[in-house]
Amino acid sequence: MSDAKQKSGGPPPSVPKAVVSRLSLYLRELEHLERTGNKTTSSSQLGSVLGFTDAQVRKDLAHFGQFGYPGIGYRTAELTEAIREILGTNKQWEVALVGAGNLGRALLGYKGFEDHGFRIAAVFDSDPAKIGTSVEGKEIYDLASLSKFAEISRIKLGVIAVPATAAQHVANQLVEAGIEGIMNFAPVTISLPDSVNLVSVDLAIELEQLSFAVINRAREG
Amino acid sequence: MSDAKQKSGGPPPSVPKAVVSRLSLYLRELEHLERTGNKTTSSSQLGSVLGFTDAQVRKDLAHFGQFGYPGIGYRTAELTEAIREILGTNKQWEVALVGAGNLGRALLGYKGFEDHGFRIAAVFDSDPAKIGTSVEGKEIYDLASLSKFAEISRIKLGVIAVPATAAQHVANQLVEAGIEGIMNFAPVTISLPDSVNLVSVDLAIELEQLSFAVINRAREG
Repeated sequence: MSDAKQKSGGPPPSVPKAVVSRLSLYLRELEHLERTGNKTTSSSQLGSVLGFTDAQVRKDLAHFGQFGYPGIGYRTAELTEAIREILGTNKQWEVALVGAGNLGRALLGYKGFEDHGFRIAAVFDSDPAKIGTSVEGKEIYDLASLSKFAEISRIKLGVIAVPATAAQHVANQLVEAGIEGIMNFAPVTISLPDSVNLVSVDLAIELEQLSFAVINRAREG
Repeated sequence: MSDAKQKSGGPPPSVPKAVVSRLSLYLRELEHLERTGNKTTSSSQLGSVLGFTDAQVRKDLAHFGQFGYPGIGYRTAELTEAIREILGTNKQWEVALVGAGNLGRALLGYKGFEDHGFRIAAVFDSDPAKIGTSVEGKEIYDLASLSKFAEISRIKLGVIAVPATAAQHVANQLVEAGIEGIMNFAPVTISLPDSVNLVSVDLAIELEQLSFAVINRAREG
């Protein structure tokens, strides 16, 4: 860790995506260690649970600063907070959810979002039968009012939980409302201007990876 | 493509995980091309939509065989079917879903599963108020009957859609029932014997990647 060149919290250089996604995994493990009363940890402890080497952990973290102490390792609470700052989740994000069907309901009840700094601030739908009703204690607003809503709130992120046929239209509305990042659950490719970030969640891909693993283990065995 | 060394469908050697997940992306794009009437495609076309080079596409596919034709490129339907065979989704998988809450309901309604070869064959819960009722047209069975059910059906995969506190117990039940692959949505680490494959879906990780992208774009801009 002594070769880290920046102080914690400095602007990260161009960091590979895989490193950023491992930060999330380290953060989960650190949160677990904190909950179970571990005040300090080591790169080998952090790595072993996740199946990475200690060298990998140190190299990943070195992209963002120097976090360890000689003879101590990492202070759990401090490293947790540092990674949250890097990921931007040390402050709360306000999120617009579009789509109040089963998936939207599940996401509203998904504890992992609020626990990690993402609050669904408002729910939108274009179905007149749903607009004005409540879901999980939140009122459903007309999709047409999204732009006005985002302007007066601090909503920066949007989640698309509508059928594939409606996804591009919703994406356009989110862009028009000034949303900077979109998480898309609809099983379809959507086009966005370069200024808007996108993550797409295709749950069938995860199952395909699983079926591949199962049949190839069967072949090996 | 001329340097591919195996025939399509042969047992893949040890292939990096990232390659297997890109196969899913190629498959999505091929399905789209097929739907829109494209009978052939090329590695550069396949790659460009997904942001990969044509060399990357060819290298990925070469792990599994030789699929292109000189002067033609890939036959869309044929490559689609070949990738399905590699991933194991050319036949239908029967899946046990455990957890009939909002997430379970959303997964039951998730069109992407059945479209890609995964049929939720049965739904289980341990809540006496839910057992015996129906959700999305499927009866909810007692979790305690999982083992018996899996034995007489062809269920090989299980999906955990229960709260974090119940996830390990459900995982144990799935293992006991002879399930070979588990997809876990509960935001908790679960332990499995080496013989059982696991994919964990942590939706907050996707949002963390998005917030990282948004704040770093903001810093750059």
